[in-house]
Amino acid sequence: MNTFGRQFSISIFGESHGECVGITIDGCPAGLPISPDDFTYDLSRRSSGAKGTTPRKEPDELKIKTGVFNGYTTGAPLTIMFDNTNTLSRDYLKLRETPRPGHADFTAMKKYGGFEDYRGGGHFSGRLTVGLVAAGVIAKKLISPMLVTATLQEAGGSTDVEAAIDAAVLKRDSIGGIIACTVSGVPAGLGEPFFDSVESLIGHMMFAIPAVKGLEFGSGFAGSRMWGSEHNDMLINTDGKTNTNNAGGINGGITNGNDLAFRIAVKPTSSTHRIQHTINLVTGEMVDLEIEGRHDTCIALRVPVVAEAATALVLVDLMMLEGMIGRRLPSNTQTPADQ
Amino acid sequence: MNTFGRQFSISIFGESHGECVGITIDGCPAGLPISPDDFTYDLSRRSSGAKGTTPRKEPDELKIKTGVFNGYTTGAPLTIMFDNTNTLSRDYLKLRETPRPGHADFTAMKKYGGFEDYRGGGHFSGRLTVGLVAAGVIAKKLISPMLVTATLQEAGGSTDVEAAIDAAVLKRDSIGGIIACTVSGVPAGLGEPFFDSVESLIGHMMFAIPAVKGLEFGSGFAGSRMWGSEHNDMLINTDGKTNTNNAGGINGGITNGNDLAFRIAVKPTSSTHRIQHTINLVTGEMVDLEIEGRHDTCIALRVPVVAEAATALVLVDLMMLEGMIGRRLPSNTQTPADQ
Amino acid sequence: MNTFGRQFSISIFGESHGECVGITIDGCPAGLPISPDDFTYDLSRRSSGAKGTTPRKEPDELKIKTGVFNGYTTGAPLTIMFDNTNTLSRDYLKLRETPRPGHADFTAMKKYGGFEDYRGGGHFSGRLTVGLVAAGVIAKKLISPMLVTATLQEAGGSTDVEAAIDAAVLKRDSIGGIIACTVSGVPAGLGEPFFDSVESLIGHMMFAIPAVKGLEFGSGFAGSRMWGSEHNDMLINTDGKTNTNNAGGINGGITNGNDLAFRIAVKPTSSTHRIQHTINLVTGEMVDLEIEGRHDTCIALRVPVVAEAATALVLVDLMMLEGMIGRRLPSNTQTPADQ
Amino acid sequence: MNTFGRQFSISIFGESHGECVGITIDGCPAGLPISPDDFTYDLSRRSSGAKGTTPRKEPDELKIKTGVFNGYTTGAPLTIMFDNTNTLSRDYLKLRETPRPGHADFTAMKKYGGFEDYRGGGHFSGRLTVGLVAAGVIAKKLISPMLVTATLQEAGGSTDVEAAIDAAVLKRDSIGGIIACTVSGVPAGLGEPFFDSVESLIGHMMFAIPAVKGLEFGSGFAGSRMWGSEHNDMLINTDGKTNTNNAGGINGGITNGNDLAFRIAVKPTSSTHRIQHTINLVTGEMVDLEIEGRHDTCIALRVPVVAEAATALVLVDLMMLEGMIGRRLPSNTQTPADQ
Repeated sequence: MNTFGRQFSISIFGESHGECVGITIDGCPAGLPISPDDFTYDLSRRSSGAKGTTPRKEPDELKIKTGVFNGYTTGAPLTIMFDNTNTLSRDYLKLRETPRPGHADFTAMKKYGGFEDYRGGGHFSGRLTVGLVAAGVIAKKLISPMLVTATLQEAGGSTDVEAAIDAAVLKRDSIGGIIACTVSGVPAGLGEPFFDSVESLIGHMMFAIPAVKGLEFGSGFAGSRMWGSEHNDMLINTDGKTNTNNAGGINGGITNGNDLAFRIAVKPTSSTHRIQHTINLVTGEMVDLEIEGRHDTCIALRVPVVAEAATALVLVDLMMLEGMIGRRLPSNTQTPADQ
Repeated sequence: MNTFGRQFSISIFGESHGECVGITIDGCPAGLPISPDDFTYDLSRRSSGAKGTTPRKEPDELKIKTGVFNGYTTGAPLTIMFDNTNTLSRDYLKLRETPRPGHADFTAMKKYGGFEDYRGGGHFSGRLTVGLVAAGVIAKKLISPMLVTATLQEAGGSTDVEAAIDAAVLKRDSIGGIIACTVSGVPAGLGEPFFDSVESLIGHMMFAIPAVKGLEFGSGFAGSRMWGSEHNDMLINTDGKTNTNNAGGINGGITNGNDLAFRIAVKPTSSTHRIQHTINLVTGEMVDLEIEGRHDTCIALRVPVVAEAATALVLVDLMMLEGMIGRRLPSNTQTPADQ
Repeated sequence: MNTFGRQFSISIFGESHGECVGITIDGCPAGLPISPDDFTYDLSRRSSGAKGTTPRKEPDELKIKTGVFNGYTTGAPLTIMFDNTNTLSRDYLKLRETPRPGHADFTAMKKYGGFEDYRGGGHFSGRLTVGLVAAGVIAKKLISPMLVTATLQEAGGSTDVEAAIDAAVLKRDSIGGIIACTVSGVPAGLGEPFFDSVESLIGHMMFAIPAVKGLEFGSGFAGSRMWGSEHNDMLINTDGKTNTNNAGGINGGITNGNDLAFRIAVKPTSSTHRIQHTINLVTGEMVDLEIEGRHDTCIALRVPVVAEAATALVLVDLMMLEGMIGRRLPSNTQTPADQ
Repeated sequence: MNTFGRQFSISIFGESHGECVGITIDGCPAGLPISPDDFTYDLSRRSSGAKGTTPRKEPDELKIKTGVFNGYTTGAPLTIMFDNTNTLSRDYLKLRETPRPGHADFTAMKKYGGFEDYRGGGHFSGRLTVGLVAAGVIAKKLISPMLVTATLQEAGGSTDVEAAIDAAVLKRDSIGGIIACTVSGVPAGLGEPFFDSVESLIGHMMFAIPAVKGLEFGSGFAGSRMWGSEHNDMLINTDGKTNTNNAGGINGGITNGNDLAFRIAVKPTSSTHRIQHTINLVTGEMVDLEIEGRHDTCIALRVPVVAEAATALVLVDLMMLEGMIGRRLPSNTQTPADQ
């Protein structure tokens, strides 16, 4: 449910306006050097503040609570937490009667019978992805020199992302985007048969990221309109290199040694500054709804680093299953035992 | 790996040209009436023989080996097997030196070191989906009156599927397609938080189906180009009904009571009658490759019923987790205990 | 690894002398009222300070970090943490060369290559069970009116526990004990076939408790010396009540409606005040070892409440699988939605 | 439920008087040579026919249905089946009203609502262990040169097993027994922290074997009556060798490099030739019950090989997790790829 991964397993917890959010990694190899600085860059990529993102600015101060000792992972569960500091109190109870369109307000109420923490999206908030990014930093270190890169290809249907955001801000509306993700340096042979194909596992993770509504590997939807003779990637050397990459680096669910390549569709932020309509669950009447407060014009701006983390987390698990990453890392630095 | 599902759990096994293929369902509720006739229609939808499909015609004779007694499921594992009867022997060993583009030949060899059963795709063959369809029949019965419907929307980029197939046959090439899947009668509240969102689980399953390379929920990729105010589905009654369905029936990973709606992209069949080029792994030279034998011009023709099965399997598991389907079914017929 | 349970799933983390220990419960039903007072009694039963237990006294201040809102569980992961406050610094590095007999010093070093947090047992410490006890409190509330009761039957081989402890203190040695656990009010039909029999799941959990080295259900080892005609429990009413309980309440791995009954053997505390001998891993010479500091004379004194928690955690999971406990609890008090 | 193991995962299916019983291994490394002869010895050890065992004699003809190709495992799921041939029809329906003491008749009916296959114990039958033994043969090959040995130490409370059986046959009663299991050649460092300790995993598996009611590691229950200074095993070399083995080769849940040693208690066979008493579930009256037909006087005679299999299955999984056994085996013989 809130856990993913067979051997490198992550568990996520927390709420947007509760005390904290966090993540526990179980099965992290022992002996990986970890410093708080490792996380700075990726956390800053996910954080808000830039144009098109919410003015809610969390310091995202990472606290490693367990699993690291003397600067190295120990092999025991590694728990990372982030306190929530910048939460505004608001008249949430009133809001409950009028579920916001596009959000999980209505579905969470149905699922949890009204007991859910509904403040700021609660457990459904994109805030939870901060833990994912932190775990992704560790995964990226482990799979190095494989390199995961995600970039926002288009926003609001336009490849000029900046202009699209300006237009959306002006219109007081929100926009979505499309993110391309590639991984270079991928060894052939990753992925498990049938249900745990690389596409399946990446699919599982990508659709766990809030706002992701589409995913395609290689030529994807466009590829379904090609001839087979066009679509087939031709092997041009004995390492499996192909001249094209319509398969996105995956055949039969297994990596073929070429770059992984896939794209994800991120829907427009559900909160906008425009007045919307919804049902009042108590009175049964349609009402106008204005969503006050701080929100992202284009949440897709902040998703690339989350997609990278999600990808790295899938890959580290597959490499551990394959024995390509061990339970203990060889270290070229002095270990605690040597001191 | 070859297992999926938490409470209604399926395990798949077999090879295309081995003795058999099959599936075991663990956790199937006791007391569901099962008759061989239940499977006929869906198995025939998956089977070949129609224009655009392979002339290899397997009788697909279903054998329920365990888990059914006196016409009812017992609650013990239910194993279903299909013997392979119509296999042609061929010079597979020669083929091994020249991996077929688009197939798993190269990746399987890398993963299993040459020990894989390479005949006819082995464990990677689409033949394995016959077990999935059989399990899907049982899942559909359990989730009834929910109704899962998948249809081929376009083939080879054209909505005139028949014409597209004619053109491909003429060209001796293969084509892909796009399949739309909807589920009606879905209760609100299905889906687990974060990693086991409905999209994640459906994504996991859909990308396990051979040849699936893309998936989008609701308005999907097109939705990422809409304004938020357009994309948001407006709630119009207190049951959660919305006027549009850009979300595909899912908010925050949880069903919202509207129809589930998603589309999958199926790549063109990798085998075509055209001459292709590939590397000879032994000599290191590029060679021409002609794939003899029987194959589908448009494998997408046979995927809808597999997609339905995959969807029903996700839903039955979610309903069991939610307690909406029990471990023992109430029966309005005489049970063995009553006899 | 550090996770257990299919639907009510617990994940444990932390180290004895690190910042904290804790537990995350995933899958806890929404709507269960939770107050800090709920935990006081069971935490005090586990805590030290009484005769025969270690003088290290942790306040065990429970912090519910996530998953509870307005006094009720939300259905999202529930994370509970306990800060470590009363840790003594010590010359641990020196100790590393001379692994303490009976402890995990040597095995942890082998497994984690010297990167493990070795202070005070690290992740292997009995300190970790404080989280288990906290989770057990929640499990006990959920399975109520089932009642789990564990008591120390004998210590150091004697039923006079107090005298045995006095003798051990005098001898500067440590002792073990045997704990009997019973559960009343158990419905028939709990337990899953074959691998997830009730005995298997309780066995899995009990042997996860540090120092537990034996487990027997019903008449157990003694039962293996009985005649079948003696051992068989005779059914005496149609609810399945039996006149004896040699089966410990379980037939074929499934509860039979009688009390669950089992016993666990707890080894003597590995740390004693006596001088022991061990190998110096660096010099390869046998050396004398005196374990300074605070330790329990009879750790078995503190295990009953842990065994109760472990039992309740198995039962709540089995009841949820059976649909006997739902994902949302009906509440007879005002819920947040009613306010 | 019917599945066990993280990386080397087994799934069991079938019924005693149904068509067949079987097992699927998912995650078996590719490249292990497999011949039907490999199974002969262990299957014969489990089979009946000797004094003290049931006269029902199944040929136990093993059929490898999938996952083996050209005499080697392929890495795909390996399904093994055994047809049931020697089943007697009987008036089972009458028997249903009067549940046999000690059997799963009553509990299965409660769990499955009368839909269970009740013939000859159905899915609860010891017949299911034949698949476990077959999977154990493969596991033993993989963990070689580790050696698992289980022997019947006592039967009916006597170390003279033969005399005990003679006495039981004479008395028309049944007896249990105690089995000692040791594993030599165990590397240090196997076992996962906390919940997946070696004791936990072995406990999980052993209690899945029908009729097992007790388990103790090393000195076990007797050890709980020792002084700590006695119980602690002294390390006598830098490989971790200890002078005694009260810990059964496990400290902190992790193997310490000494032999694994544990004992299991097997209850007397529930079926005896003596007249027993039970309740008639329809009339509510106590009745006499004579269990006709074929049964084991001492089922414990056939359990050692099952215990060995269960142990090997735990160990192979732990070794794969640790990367000590890879996904592809190096082979010193010609592989298919070389041919």
